[in-house]
Amino acid sequence: MHVISDQLLDDHVRERAFTLDGIPGFLWTPASARATAPVPLILLGHPTLGLPRMYPRLAERARHCAAQGFATATIELPGCGNRPSRPDMDRTRAELRRTLQAGRPVTDDLVDRLVLPLIEQAVPECRAALDTLLALDEIDGPVGCSGGIISLGIRLATTDPRIKAVGLFAGSYIPHAIVEEARRLTLPAHVLLQWDDQGNDRQAALDLFDALGSQEKTLEANMGGHTGVPAHAGDCAARFFTRHLTRTPTRTSAAATG
Amino acid sequence: MHVISDQLLDDHVRERAFTLDGIPGFLWTPASARATAPVPLILLGHPTLGLPRMYPRLAERARHCAAQGFATATIELPGCGNRPSRPDMDRTRAELRRTLQAGRPVTDDLVDRLVLPLIEQAVPECRAALDTLLALDEIDGPVGCSGGIISLGIRLATTDPRIKAVGLFAGSYIPHAIVEEARRLTLPAHVLLQWDDQGNDRQAALDLFDALGSQEKTLEANMGGHTGVPAHAGDCAARFFTRHLTRTPTRTSAAATG
Repeated sequence: MHVISDQLLDDHVRERAFTLDGIPGFLWTPASARATAPVPLILLGHPTLGLPRMYPRLAERARHCAAQGFATATIELPGCGNRPSRPDMDRTRAELRRTLQAGRPVTDDLVDRLVLPLIEQAVPECRAALDTLLALDEIDGPVGCSGGIISLGIRLATTDPRIKAVGLFAGSYIPHAIVEEARRLTLPAHVLLQWDDQGNDRQAALDLFDALGSQEKTLEANMGGHTGVPAHAGDCAARFFTRHLTRTPTRTSAAATG
Repeated sequence: MHVISDQLLDDHVRERAFTLDGIPGFLWTPASARATAPVPLILLGHPTLGLPRMYPRLAERARHCAAQGFATATIELPGCGNRPSRPDMDRTRAELRRTLQAGRPVTDDLVDRLVLPLIEQAVPECRAALDTLLALDEIDGPVGCSGGIISLGIRLATTDPRIKAVGLFAGSYIPHAIVEEARRLTLPAHVLLQWDDQGNDRQAALDLFDALGSQEKTLEANMGGHTGVPAHAGDCAARFFTRHLTRTPTRTSAAATG
């Protein structure tokens, strides 16, 4: 891991920009984290817009996670941001844009070509990043995985045993193969769905939630459009990770509803 | 209001059993509530099983609400528990049982006959109870409405301006007329759905959530069957009422998900 910059945000969060085998990434840790008090890690996912564009939202999530006692990290997706372009992916994304503009249906084949090559490269990269990050003194397991490309979250959660809880942000374009993988998921899962997200296939999100094999799974749906996740839903997701990634989870109390 | 018993539960919650125009009910207040520090009220709904049978679950909810600074109250439903039976309702419920046992479809007409007469009597009774309860020194508005017959919650929330937030526990048998009323709902709504509730029509619950006219609405779905609402979902519902019924809502912080 080659650290490019190392600075404090708001006096509370240590931000390291790094590259790892040439892949840009960020690590955020509570400023108080140290070898004698290591913190759990949450991998932050993001869409294919590139880290430079996604940085403000990611840093905001990192700040909140740090306040809850979590380290967070993210790495650039293949072919995105400042990484070498992947002409095959660019062509497929252009094909998707043309398909949507023409009002034609997005075929299963197009969804597969759009998502599967991306996650087939991204999964080993994320796992390699975990190897490096978990070797740092101030970070300890267990690991959570939060948001971003939903298929990547599912593939990581079903294949990397270090990941103990997965937060998914409902999106469209989920290959059938990933839905089948989701049936084998056993980890606690928390799914956020923006009910009025115009760019989202709500039924696909509900079908995916139904498919998840996890005994403990929560779907939280809210209004506010794609980027309008209400603060209370973010808090709810944060408590999900606190319950599952910390050794002394916040005590919860029932206000049952029967 | 004729108080039948007045006792402390756990030293923290004052429980008054009462009758009001012959209708049995309970009022629970934080033991600390007084005229100089009145608390908001949440009406607790319940199914048609009768208060004597529902008491343990209601008292448990009341304890948790009191710990959050809320008074809670509930009254018996028409024809239920120790109230005079309603032979018309008994006949309709028997018809429902026969229909389900025979594996026949539950028609819209049967749903209407099952639900509408019940709520047409229950709504004015709940409103009269609110008149009395809100006149007590230690209780102040605003009022929340939580759980129970979903159609009753919607009818109350759309017709009584004292109610400012509504928590609904997804159930089946919702008349079309009530779905139409739900479209006019403008209050914040929090809907709990047990995804694997065998006795529940999941699609009806999703359709109802979609119909709710509220700009601010949350659907939280979990596993655990009808009575297995996880503690964290109860906490989430409690925070919903805290946000909307208290004057100094708990500050929430975004851990956004983009």
